[in-house]
Amino acid sequence: MSDSRAVVLLSGGLDSATVLAIALAEGYECHCLSFDYGQRHNTELDFATRLARTMGATSHRIAGIDIGGFGGSALTDHALHVPTQGVQSGIPVTYVPARNTVFLSYALGLAEVLDAADIFIGVNAVDYSGYPDCRPEFIAAFEAMANLATKAGIEGRSLHIRTPLIDLPKEAIIRRGIELGVDYSQTVSCYQLDAEGRACGRCDSCRIRAAGFEAAGVPDPTRYLGG
Amino acid sequence: MSDSRAVVLLSGGLDSATVLAIALAEGYECHCLSFDYGQRHNTELDFATRLARTMGATSHRIAGIDIGGFGGSALTDHALHVPTQGVQSGIPVTYVPARNTVFLSYALGLAEVLDAADIFIGVNAVDYSGYPDCRPEFIAAFEAMANLATKAGIEGRSLHIRTPLIDLPKEAIIRRGIELGVDYSQTVSCYQLDAEGRACGRCDSCRIRAAGFEAAGVPDPTRYLGG
Repeated sequence: MSDSRAVVLLSGGLDSATVLAIALAEGYECHCLSFDYGQRHNTELDFATRLARTMGATSHRIAGIDIGGFGGSALTDHALHVPTQGVQSGIPVTYVPARNTVFLSYALGLAEVLDAADIFIGVNAVDYSGYPDCRPEFIAAFEAMANLATKAGIEGRSLHIRTPLIDLPKEAIIRRGIELGVDYSQTVSCYQLDAEGRACGRCDSCRIRAAGFEAAGVPDPTRYLGG
Repeated sequence: MSDSRAVVLLSGGLDSATVLAIALAEGYECHCLSFDYGQRHNTELDFATRLARTMGATSHRIAGIDIGGFGGSALTDHALHVPTQGVQSGIPVTYVPARNTVFLSYALGLAEVLDAADIFIGVNAVDYSGYPDCRPEFIAAFEAMANLATKAGIEGRSLHIRTPLIDLPKEAIIRRGIELGVDYSQTVSCYQLDAEGRACGRCDSCRIRAAGFEAAGVPDPTRYLGG
């Protein structure tokens, strides 16, 4: 297992771009993994591909996965409505069942094939407190399971799930990314991005992102619809 | 969460067909899930589809997943050779990295959408002692993680990973299935099944299966190549 090789989950969004910058700054050889899961906002995959290339990742894979077909989330089920009235408490309708579990499981398989000891994921328990699979206790349980699931675990080498953003408010994430040279104009967060990569400005993800730039005192580089 | 609804992982093989029979006999409404992961032996998916229908499953889904593209296993990487010299100790080359983790993660997503409290999987720690993700400690860790990953877990309802075969030798699995009326001629186990569903008779999976029928004192209904 290489100490310097990492799998980085990269969505094309602000958080995962920051995570990639952090992993690169720590000296990891970064192998990025994105998912095409039938998300409404799959223009984000083009952004992920460009970010991986321009930021200096060693490889980038897009895995097609079928969880969208299970339904149950406004992000994949076009019959459900993406809320645009502001962030509510509780588990949002945009929660995709078992999404981070599935994403991390794929990352685990790739880490095993690449002999990588670290998996980086941009989960955040501050802004996404309503998502069960963004909580530190979920990540700890996944890591424990992962170390029993694999050859590496059997052989006594441990694998780590790295969540450098988990406790950070959005403005702190943005400040950290700017220090590391992340170009946030090349990232997208909107749940209902249009084909040109323009954001709606009204969904939860847009609201959290815009508030983050404001709190960080940084001009918001997001391209909004009609903007 | 319905106490009587279950997700059953169904490969088309002897073990998972027996698991489906057990779940049905326990009175569960069974929703089967199979995976197309680029396996050499994907004729097994036709067998899974037929088994789900003839045995009385309520639904059957085949999810296409990309782990085959990661390489690293003789079951998905055609450049690697499926061993036919007999079962060896250690982790076999037919081990697919993180396969059961990925399979169970999908099952978890489907269980959440269907509001099912049980996931049945035919892992076996006797014949597959070389696979890290067939061990009871892995299953227990996955269950603990799953209960933190989901809405149901947050709401205090628990999800169970059911592994009725985990401690059974192959002959005991076969005897149990026969009691329950499983038609094993409609199941396939071979790692290099041909397009007509005929088994090689020489890979580890064929050898374990054939020895099981012999030990159970039951005629082997498997269709072998050249047989």
